[in-house]
Amino acid sequence: MFAETLKRVVDNVDGGIAAVVMGLDGIPVETYVKQKDRVDVNTVAMEFSFILTQVRKAGDSLQVGSLEELSVKAQRLVLVCRMISPQYFVAIAMAPEGNFGKARYLARVSAPTLAAAL
Amino acid sequence: MFAETLKRVVDNVDGGIAAVVMGLDGIPVETYVKQKDRVDVNTVAMEFSFILTQVRKAGDSLQVGSLEELSVKAQRLVLVCRMISPQYFVAIAMAPEGNFGKARYLARVSAPTLAAAL
Repeated sequence: MFAETLKRVVDNVDGGIAAVVMGLDGIPVETYVKQKDRVDVNTVAMEFSFILTQVRKAGDSLQVGSLEELSVKAQRLVLVCRMISPQYFVAIAMAPEGNFGKARYLARVSAPTLAAAL
Repeated sequence: MFAETLKRVVDNVDGGIAAVVMGLDGIPVETYVKQKDRVDVNTVAMEFSFILTQVRKAGDSLQVGSLEELSVKAQRLVLVCRMISPQYFVAIAMAPEGNFGKARYLARVSAPTLAAAL
C-alpha cells in the first residue's frame, strides 16, 4: 500500500531518487528506492526526523499553526518532507535539477492515501 | 543597501509579510517589515538560524554538498530561507496562500546583491 504510492510519486518526479514514510522517531515504515547509487534515503530521512521535530517545536513556540511541509535544497540533493499525521512524514529525495514543484504537489496529494494506510 | 533589496523582494511577493538578513548566530543584520501585525520575523528567523545550523550539520554528515535553501510551510506561515554566505542567510516570511515560487525565485536572484553588501 505504502510501497505503491511511494513508487508512483518517485517515478513521476523528474530526478526522483527515493522516498520513505517515517516516524518522527526516525524509524522507517516503508521505503522505495529508484536510484540505488545516489543517497541512502533512510539515513537522510532519519537526520530530518530530528530536524522536523525541532521545526515543529519552533512552530509551536511561534504559534504559526501545525507544520505541514519542509523542503531543503543542498548542492547535490533536494529533499521534500511532508507531515502525513502528527507523528509520521513522507520524505522524497530528488536530484537538484529535478522537478521540485511536482515533488511538492505529489507529496501533498498522496498524503491522505499514505495517512489512511498508517 | 540591504533594506532596499529586502523591500523589493517582500513587496513583489503576493502575501509577503517581512524579510530579514541574519547570521547563523541569530543576530539580524537588516529587517524589512511590510505587514506589522502578522509575525515577528526576527523571532522566527532566530529560531530558524538554529535549525539551519542543524540542517547544515546534517548535510555535512550526509555529504550532499553545501546547504542552499530551506523552506517551511506551517498552517499560518511560510518561510523561505536562503544562504547568502557560509554564515548569513536571508529569510522571507509570507502568508500560506502567497506565491511561494516567486519568493524562492526572488530569494535566489537577490542573494548575490545581498552577499555583496555583507
